[in-house]
Amino acid sequence: MAKVYVIGHKSPDTDSIVSAIAYANFKGKIDVDDEYIPARAGEINSETKYVLERFNVPVPELLTNAEGKNLILVDHNEMGQVVDGADKARIFEIIDHHKIGDIQTSAPILFHAEPVGSTGTIVADFYFYHKIPLSKEMASILLAAILSDTVIFKSPTTTEKDKQIAEKLNEIAGLDIEKFGMEVKSAKSDIKGKTANELIMSDFKEFEKDGYKYGVCQVEVVRYDEAEARKDEILKELEAVGASKGERLAVFMLTNIIDESTKLWFVGDEEVIRKAFKKEPVNNEVFLPGVMSRKLQVVPPIHEAIG
Amino acid sequence: MAKVYVIGHKSPDTDSIVSAIAYANFKGKIDVDDEYIPARAGEINSETKYVLERFNVPVPELLTNAEGKNLILVDHNEMGQVVDGADKARIFEIIDHHKIGDIQTSAPILFHAEPVGSTGTIVADFYFYHKIPLSKEMASILLAAILSDTVIFKSPTTTEKDKQIAEKLNEIAGLDIEKFGMEVKSAKSDIKGKTANELIMSDFKEFEKDGYKYGVCQVEVVRYDEAEARKDEILKELEAVGASKGERLAVFMLTNIIDESTKLWFVGDEEVIRKAFKKEPVNNEVFLPGVMSRKLQVVPPIHEAIG
Repeated sequence: MAKVYVIGHKSPDTDSIVSAIAYANFKGKIDVDDEYIPARAGEINSETKYVLERFNVPVPELLTNAEGKNLILVDHNEMGQVVDGADKARIFEIIDHHKIGDIQTSAPILFHAEPVGSTGTIVADFYFYHKIPLSKEMASILLAAILSDTVIFKSPTTTEKDKQIAEKLNEIAGLDIEKFGMEVKSAKSDIKGKTANELIMSDFKEFEKDGYKYGVCQVEVVRYDEAEARKDEILKELEAVGASKGERLAVFMLTNIIDESTKLWFVGDEEVIRKAFKKEPVNNEVFLPGVMSRKLQVVPPIHEAIG
Repeated sequence: MAKVYVIGHKSPDTDSIVSAIAYANFKGKIDVDDEYIPARAGEINSETKYVLERFNVPVPELLTNAEGKNLILVDHNEMGQVVDGADKARIFEIIDHHKIGDIQTSAPILFHAEPVGSTGTIVADFYFYHKIPLSKEMASILLAAILSDTVIFKSPTTTEKDKQIAEKLNEIAGLDIEKFGMEVKSAKSDIKGKTANELIMSDFKEFEKDGYKYGVCQVEVVRYDEAEARKDEILKELEAVGASKGERLAVFMLTNIIDESTKLWFVGDEEVIRKAFKKEPVNNEVFLPGVMSRKLQVVPPIHEAIG
């Protein structure tokens, strides 16, 4: 009986934590010979805390070093985002919904990446496809993951499949989807009482292209003014975080989920920002109306603009 | 209406060609807004020729440069094996059953790699899952692809899923599976009348790890003696091929499908071979009883032994 840790990315968000919990549960049902343990690569954020507490689901085990362990990666496929020690671990599977990153294996594995709005959608689909019953708790947290990652279906990453799977999950969960979505999102959108470092690190992702490192964090708010009053403090901290990770560009996406727009703040390579968004930055900022998705609207143009 | 080319690896084998044909056909049925064209990245081998002619299926279009085109990659996910110009193409999907290679994208795509015996198994499963009817021709060539890649279920890459899917395909194809498998395999195992270069290039795959390039080709035979009589000639040609591709190691797998063993011939980095197979090479050769699979039994130990 092998122990396999199912784990999401560093600076975990709700989709990453819920996918780890639900996929570990799923694997445990279709393979009773091995033990599947949900794990996390960092502290959970206030939104995830709200979701797990509401449905009495335990917080996954913290894994600080994965060296020598068996891993299934969910919700990421970039070495820059993976738990420490993963380069010396055995990666058995990858289930994700992001661009294809830089993880290589020496033997064939199951690698399923699908361009849908959340990894929760894919995990829920596995349950339905294999006809594994979902408990009310599991269906509810998967629904929360979908609503969180798709910003209640407002993000351009949202697909018909996300909506269909959410409806099917809600046949079990029995919630008011719109209202539940706002409850989930507002558990995170309050920035009061958080330090600049907490804001940045609560959802920070690292990327690399041909040796060029960059990082993009995203904070979702329902109003701009509170964060704007702290812009200097946040930029200063962003600079320190980027420098500590050897990044040539560090980006802070301040996304207003009501307005459906993003103020993109950055430190570092201004030329890449100019080229990526075809806008002239003012005070380390470009305003991006209609932009809500890091993986679809911010990372691809930056990735293309590098080199 | 976009044109999308569905294409397998260079030095295509039967699984690569059939998967391109069958997946293009499948995509055309579930997405009538776009045009899916099966393509190939090189000449077909004698086994594939036999299979396509037997079922009157046209040979896919030859694509020599994919620059600017829309692509779906089947049966590979390594830049060293992809059609020329793919670095300047748009990759929409990847369907494969090999180790995870070095292809990166700037946006999310469907990437499905599954550790089964052939890509044909995965493609057939898509038809069954989406309830798309399979013609007798399509079922027969998919069955041929599975039998070819799994060496009639004798390769250690074979999974229960390959056998189940083969059975389901044969409900439509109506063939004697064992007999059909031998007919398919023997269409390729005759090395008479082939030059050393033809033998090597008929199924040659290139790999890279941290800048270290290596190549592995495989020739399946029903007896060793004919190829052994030409060992010097083959090694000399292997050296030329490896050098022309900048490889530090070039490997020729002479696999006996009756004995279920492989004579591994190589030129270049002897130390990696020694470390990978824990055997002392004699005359540029190690004998590997029970070894039939490049991707499961030869590439992983070499990949691990490098660096």
